[in-house]
Amino acid sequence: MTRLPPLSDLSLSGPSLAALDARDPLAHKRAEFDLPADVVYLDGNSLGALPRHVPARLAQVATQEWGQHLIGSWTRGAQAAQDWMALPDRVAAKLAPLIGAQPQEVAVGDSTSVNTFKALAAALRLSGRRVILSDADNFPTDLYVAQGLARLLGDVEVRTAPAHAITDHLTDDVGALLLTEVDYRTGRRLDMRAVTAAAHAHGIVTVWDLAHSAGAFAVDLGGAGADFAIGCGYKFLNGGPGAPAFLYVAGRHLDRAEVVLSGWMGHADPFEMARQYAPAPGARRFVVGTPQVLSLSALDAALDVFGDVDLAALREKSLSLTDTFIRLMEPLTRQHPLELVTPLAHAERGSQVSYRHPDARRVMARLTGRGVIGDFRTPDILRFGFTPLYLSHEDVGRAVAGIEAVLNEQTGERA
Amino acid sequence: MTRLPPLSDLSLSGPSLAALDARDPLAHKRAEFDLPADVVYLDGNSLGALPRHVPARLAQVATQEWGQHLIGSWTRGAQAAQDWMALPDRVAAKLAPLIGAQPQEVAVGDSTSVNTFKALAAALRLSGRRVILSDADNFPTDLYVAQGLARLLGDVEVRTAPAHAITDHLTDDVGALLLTEVDYRTGRRLDMRAVTAAAHAHGIVTVWDLAHSAGAFAVDLGGAGADFAIGCGYKFLNGGPGAPAFLYVAGRHLDRAEVVLSGWMGHADPFEMARQYAPAPGARRFVVGTPQVLSLSALDAALDVFGDVDLAALREKSLSLTDTFIRLMEPLTRQHPLELVTPLAHAERGSQVSYRHPDARRVMARLTGRGVIGDFRTPDILRFGFTPLYLSHEDVGRAVAGIEAVLNEQTGERA
Repeated sequence: MTRLPPLSDLSLSGPSLAALDARDPLAHKRAEFDLPADVVYLDGNSLGALPRHVPARLAQVATQEWGQHLIGSWTRGAQAAQDWMALPDRVAAKLAPLIGAQPQEVAVGDSTSVNTFKALAAALRLSGRRVILSDADNFPTDLYVAQGLARLLGDVEVRTAPAHAITDHLTDDVGALLLTEVDYRTGRRLDMRAVTAAAHAHGIVTVWDLAHSAGAFAVDLGGAGADFAIGCGYKFLNGGPGAPAFLYVAGRHLDRAEVVLSGWMGHADPFEMARQYAPAPGARRFVVGTPQVLSLSALDAALDVFGDVDLAALREKSLSLTDTFIRLMEPLTRQHPLELVTPLAHAERGSQVSYRHPDARRVMARLTGRGVIGDFRTPDILRFGFTPLYLSHEDVGRAVAGIEAVLNEQTGERA
Repeated sequence: MTRLPPLSDLSLSGPSLAALDARDPLAHKRAEFDLPADVVYLDGNSLGALPRHVPARLAQVATQEWGQHLIGSWTRGAQAAQDWMALPDRVAAKLAPLIGAQPQEVAVGDSTSVNTFKALAAALRLSGRRVILSDADNFPTDLYVAQGLARLLGDVEVRTAPAHAITDHLTDDVGALLLTEVDYRTGRRLDMRAVTAAAHAHGIVTVWDLAHSAGAFAVDLGGAGADFAIGCGYKFLNGGPGAPAFLYVAGRHLDRAEVVLSGWMGHADPFEMARQYAPAPGARRFVVGTPQVLSLSALDAALDVFGDVDLAALREKSLSLTDTFIRLMEPLTRQHPLELVTPLAHAERGSQVSYRHPDARRVMARLTGRGVIGDFRTPDILRFGFTPLYLSHEDVGRAVAGIEAVLNEQTGERA
């Protein structure tokens, strides 16, 4: 793999960006995505772009598997593991290497919110305690799910603390720690291994939300000693709008991880139609009802994009893109009320860069109008996501030029 | 609408079947489905057939809405209610008239199992009691979900009784009654109105599973006084494999029906990103995480098939098809060890007919090989579903001829 030169070696003029792109070992992946020609898409951390081959797969599933083979598709091709029954397992097997998991530790299906509920409930039961601790600024649905579980159980407390000080709040009464590895607003990445170890020292079971991690860089759940994790298929995994989510449970917990959302698709023998629930042996038990096959097939196809991707190169390119963006934006932060909120240290950065701006909502609306698509996050965040599979350094240059034009336009209006 | 003649007026030869079909006011609907030419599909109660226009809609959602408009599709067209954010509500509005509901009483998304969990939890909380009563022969996932909720809560009992005697078990300690209106094995239809009234007399909150009802005949949840209902989109609603499911909550409960699976898509203001959950005003609160848009769009398109369907004609044709099937099968029940387990009384019948046969698994495998597709249900049930939208009386005749051939073949082998 070609190493990208360190950013400090470069003058960041147009030709230099082109030079960086010329040495990009992932440059060929762009052609696997269908993106409008006139946009720079910096919102793949909200909805990943369309892999070109996905519509054909969807058409095949609809017209052939559903239309022609009908009910038979649930079991057809089972010996070659091509049946719909095993589709969640096939997707899990493709996803596992991206997150440092074994296939039998991963269940695919439902939404991230529903999987958070399953994981939190199982984590609390493993801990035998009644306190859920989370980041006060966690993505709201994580907090809502914790609040819902607490309402249901009655005697469970949801406690929050700032993510940067979370280790100060790891006490022996906390049962489950629910954290998002990369903050959806700031892009700050937590040290999963260190936080997990600190939690374990207090007997706390961890639930990591990988919404902004999976597919953005190599996640090593096994190496970090994580207990549970959840994440979504539609951001850096490019699985399509609302793509099925995933749940990870460490192999060491499989004999005791309890399923509270127990449905027939997670039963040890779904077609036995037994009256009593008996969990499937692996993480499959966390698959609940009948999977949404069309959406799941799109995710299955989308994951093939990662088949030939070196995850070290992916991370290296991600950092090169975000470094480049930060460097090119630097002069603008001196001329405009822009405050970088994403850490400069690589170890603390995901694959996004965010700035505060007092008029962020309007700035982003104008940027989008110019074809530079990021997003606004309340109250004052301009968020830019960088998907290494389909973005170039030249895209970064174009984005910054667009941002500069919009900011100057607004300054001109105020003057 | 042309009335079909009563079955007793007909001799059931080929021409008579053709005559029935000639007077079928729904005959034109068959052309809206894409079915293999060489099969008689009697398994639409397991996976409904493909409406012809669905693949084009899927392609449009994938290549245009996802591929070209990207993240913008979540809010694009909001004023015309064409945004993805409102897609669950649009589907709910199409579904509502099929089940006797108001649009704001219906939430669409997740699987039937997950919706059963939400509805059961909410029903128990409304009742203030700790016993769930269900049919001992209910579809297993309903029982598994009840068992999972009971495991989670610790002090909840799951009690079962035979469906035909369920009213004898309605006691004042029962909180939630979970019943499937049409039994998945026998096709027996319960009297939803009478059972609901009997349950209410004991202060019991009802949860009706409409898996084998919705789309098969007009369901009148409002008229029956039902409290909650759930059902799936992939059987008689033809929404595609694992299509999103639905949840109904009676309008009178909306101010108190609690969401325990609380996610950001059911929040009163999803983009406010508030730290505290606040439920959306209607049943929308039961939408949890980000919906699987591809699968949901397929269901949305599939429901358009019902746009011009008179639900009274649908039921009349369903009964004509099942009556015809039962009548044509009658001679076979005298020659072979076939036992009809579906009630003859129309009021007690769904849109399927089932027989016990000691060698049912092998009979169904052979039938499928001949292109007559029904299904086997453990331990000894031959199940045949009749979707009035795409089946004709001549199909019924062909199916019976196939069954006769297979049964005679097996008799010959044993001789």
